Amino acid sequence: MAASADTLIALLHGPDQPGLVAKTAGWIFERGGNILHADQHRDMEQGVFFQRIEWASPPDEDLPSERDAFAAFTASLGMKARILLSGHRPRVALMVSRADHCFHDLILRWKARELRCEICGILSNHPDLGDAAQGYGLPFVHIPVTRGSKPDAEAEQIHRLRQWGAELVVLARYMQILSGPFLETLGAPVINIHHSFLPAFAGARPYHQAHERGVKLIGATAHYVTAILDDGPIIHQDVIRVSHRHGVEDLIRKGRHLEKSVLAQAVNWHLENRVLAYGAKTVVFD
Amino acid sequence: MAASADTLIALLHGPDQPGLVAKTAGWIFERGGNILHADQHRDMEQGVFFQRIEWASPPDEDLPSERDAFAAFTASLGMKARILLSGHRPRVALMVSRADHCFHDLILRWKARELRCEICGILSNHPDLGDAAQGYGLPFVHIPVTRGSKPDAEAEQIHRLRQWGAELVVLARYMQILSGPFLETLGAPVINIHHSFLPAFAGARPYHQAHERGVKLIGATAHYVTAILDDGPIIHQDVIRVSHRHGVEDLIRKGRHLEKSVLAQAVNWHLENRVLAYGAKTVVFD
Amino acid sequence: MAASADTLIALLHGPDQPGLVAKTAGWIFERGGNILHADQHRDMEQGVFFQRIEWASPPDEDLPSERDAFAAFTASLGMKARILLSGHRPRVALMVSRADHCFHDLILRWKARELRCEICGILSNHPDLGDAAQGYGLPFVHIPVTRGSKPDAEAEQIHRLRQWGAELVVLARYMQILSGPFLETLGAPVINIHHSFLPAFAGARPYHQAHERGVKLIGATAHYVTAILDDGPIIHQDVIRVSHRHGVEDLIRKGRHLEKSVLAQAVNWHLENRVLAYGAKTVVFD
Amino acid sequence: MAASADTLIALLHGPDQPGLVAKTAGWIFERGGNILHADQHRDMEQGVFFQRIEWASPPDEDLPSERDAFAAFTASLGMKARILLSGHRPRVALMVSRADHCFHDLILRWKARELRCEICGILSNHPDLGDAAQGYGLPFVHIPVTRGSKPDAEAEQIHRLRQWGAELVVLARYMQILSGPFLETLGAPVINIHHSFLPAFAGARPYHQAHERGVKLIGATAHYVTAILDDGPIIHQDVIRVSHRHGVEDLIRKGRHLEKSVLAQAVNWHLENRVLAYGAKTVVFD
Repeated sequence: MAASADTLIALLHGPDQPGLVAKTAGWIFERGGNILHADQHRDMEQGVFFQRIEWASPPDEDLPSERDAFAAFTASLGMKARILLSGHRPRVALMVSRADHCFHDLILRWKARELRCEICGILSNHPDLGDAAQGYGLPFVHIPVTRGSKPDAEAEQIHRLRQWGAELVVLARYMQILSGPFLETLGAPVINIHHSFLPAFAGARPYHQAHERGVKLIGATAHYVTAILDDGPIIHQDVIRVSHRHGVEDLIRKGRHLEKSVLAQAVNWHLENRVLAYGAKTVVFD
Repeated sequence: MAASADTLIALLHGPDQPGLVAKTAGWIFERGGNILHADQHRDMEQGVFFQRIEWASPPDEDLPSERDAFAAFTASLGMKARILLSGHRPRVALMVSRADHCFHDLILRWKARELRCEICGILSNHPDLGDAAQGYGLPFVHIPVTRGSKPDAEAEQIHRLRQWGAELVVLARYMQILSGPFLETLGAPVINIHHSFLPAFAGARPYHQAHERGVKLIGATAHYVTAILDDGPIIHQDVIRVSHRHGVEDLIRKGRHLEKSVLAQAVNWHLENRVLAYGAKTVVFD
Repeated sequence: MAASADTLIALLHGPDQPGLVAKTAGWIFERGGNILHADQHRDMEQGVFFQRIEWASPPDEDLPSERDAFAAFTASLGMKARILLSGHRPRVALMVSRADHCFHDLILRWKARELRCEICGILSNHPDLGDAAQGYGLPFVHIPVTRGSKPDAEAEQIHRLRQWGAELVVLARYMQILSGPFLETLGAPVINIHHSFLPAFAGARPYHQAHERGVKLIGATAHYVTAILDDGPIIHQDVIRVSHRHGVEDLIRKGRHLEKSVLAQAVNWHLENRVLAYGAKTVVFD
Repeated sequence: MAASADTLIALLHGPDQPGLVAKTAGWIFERGGNILHADQHRDMEQGVFFQRIEWASPPDEDLPSERDAFAAFTASLGMKARILLSGHRPRVALMVSRADHCFHDLILRWKARELRCEICGILSNHPDLGDAAQGYGLPFVHIPVTRGSKPDAEAEQIHRLRQWGAELVVLARYMQILSGPFLETLGAPVINIHHSFLPAFAGARPYHQAHERGVKLIGATAHYVTAILDDGPIIHQDVIRVSHRHGVEDLIRKGRHLEKSVLAQAVNWHLENRVLAYGAKTVVFD
């Protein structure tokens, strides 16, 4: 599924109208582009059209101009577009606390070229993972967060993320709530991994909640972060089976593998421009 | 896993104490029985011991006496036992409304000898499935339930269930809430299939709730019914993947297959004396 | 995902060339049609383009003419098209032996309007399911097959299938091999359910083979039938977990549910014109 | 599920006979031990009894003596026993080639205390992972293997494994076949991860084979290594869904995550003394 060099990947959405598929395909064809993949979706209830379209640019056109021309064209159709050049590798920052499984997993996948991005730095409210980050050759900044210091800490976090040019922030088991103002100021998407099958067991200690309720499956949910805790648009979810034999410690251990794979898949889809959040939901062109 | 003829299957639980495994196994051995399966569990937090043990009775002993003797023995150890004779086929009543998928599925599995029971009758608050029940040769009683008539209707339901000698009641998509007094008076276990991954989306119209929240998996949950809606001990759960392409109608259609398999599995485990409810949870010796 | 009334669903494939997406979408748009879904695939290795496209016909055009015009248009592009009118319900015949689980499952799904087809009749080499077919109001013809009688039996089968106008034949656990000449003469697609995860355990008694090998998952595979046993293009597969505790009888029992769901899904996809067989494989636009 | 300190875990098997459960439980009880878990299995066809039993030793007895006494006792019953002291952490060597995903995954799980062992060293027929091994502080020995040098290389491998005291060897995507004499001389169990759902696609390049056959699920299989390639007793298997959209490269990428989790689970079960190989199969007390 990996795109080859020299393609553009556009994610569009806007009010539905007849002929949108023909118009976008026609525009690309007329300019000498070749569509490699195209996928559409209509939300019939809300009258919204969604499209992900990937095409090889004409050889005589540079990609940024092509991108700008396509953006202008789709705007003229009343649609919003997010367009990725295949050669661009978005800059991604991780935020972590003490747990290291998602941290290692994302970085090793990145090093194995499974994730098309540049990991630009690690922020943490604890110093624990500093050495490991250094071992990977990645910048690590420890910013303690206490109840009183939160506004200052968030300002410092924003400062670092901007300095690094982060286009995506991944909360790889970061155990602090980000404030509404933080998210607004940041202006970049934030993906979180919640260690339950949302909306079940939102909030703190979900494995403890799951154990208490006696569920037979535990889950993990990757979602975009909004100002409301554990309520943002869901990108990916998965579950594994547990039984009465599993104590809370077992759920935590079993959940780790799930958290890693669910978060990595969600980040991967985001980086391949496959995820479009609208309202409380996502369209995922997988 | 099917038990052969002439075995006893006991489900025990009680306060943990040293030597319980040795004592039950020793008792059976000394009387000439042969243990076919034995499975134990300890809830360390609550100090409770659970055991499912199946054994071939000694040839010179009749099963009911053996059962009574074992019950007396385990009582002397401070444990409660539920003991099933392998030849006994518990009488099961179904309660249904209009949806027929779980209804057909359970009856066809029963006819295919997948369920070790006798289906003794069908109660419904709608007449719709009467003909189908008749086609299967099963008693069908239509008892309308309205807000005002509920106490009378429940009395009539109890009457029929007792008449049929129902030892287990299965709510095969029965769309009415059973009252606390009904459950108390009935005195038999009731298994329900809820069409969501509980505790997410309890209550009415779970597929609509799931669609609105934009989840990426939908689930079904089989549980024992208690006086609190959708809160009883969970026996079995499963999920399937959905996407933005699936409307509510698709979730309903996809969910049907899940509901059938989850409910059938839960009923099957119950009938094989594999499920022990304690507190808000179950132990399932699968 | 169910198509609403008055749509056309085309499955296309042919040599890849630039502009195919634009051309088909443009053709539909110019004639006043509205594309509801469109999905494409390119087999890069073989240079083949595949498309499934569903559109609402223009109000002033009748569907059969639209279909013929689109077929002519795509032929002019060097592509082959299979075009379904949404109002058309293909005629489907079942072939069965003694096992009845897939038989009941398909018929109940059909009656529940999950399958967009007309079940036109049942052929069997055994008389066992005759009464059940009659109970469903479906024609049932018993054609015994012995080694010596196979050519005559196949001629009689072809005769009946033609009489019923079968456009699809589903082998719902039909335990005889269909000959090459039968398939050629029939000229209609045949879908089979094989009770293993092909290519593992092709041929007879797959659950016995699986048990002997000690696998930890058992599977089921729905595929188009070709003259080579269990070798046709795979449409759908699924698996479930088993353990050392499960004997062959348990595998058979557990496998039943899997066979039902895998076969029903494959038939459903075929009926919604989502499956394109090419070479030894399928493209499934799900 | 993690055993607490000061327990013994015995895996037994031998000819079935009445009273085995009672006898082992009785022996432990009489000596003042407390059974924490006990699980039995009977292979009815072959008349073999299997048991995994974990107990807290009596406070006045040292574990090695208890182990030896239990071994003598079970030998007197005609059974073979493998007994693990919970405090003992078996020494595990990894053999790798170039692929590093299972290598990192096992080591990180070990560092996160998910695997109860000591990783004692890494052998490789390529130098590629030497730096990474060093980064983890683990001995790494590069032993090239060519057709001509294989006997010498295997002798050197045996030498190193003995030097490290390896009690288990894990082939973490080691791409060379181990000879029968090597396995015999080694005398320790060897676990391999094969990147297909065995017995489908044994041998080389299984993802290429799977892609060519057009399967809809790909798998991974962890098994004990025997002298016959990809034929040893299966410990664990899992699958994930693929479609026509996935090229061979995608199967390889998707398979990596599967290989990691399947191998880690199999190694974990082995280390917890949960796996008993007999004939071509395993009993896994999970």
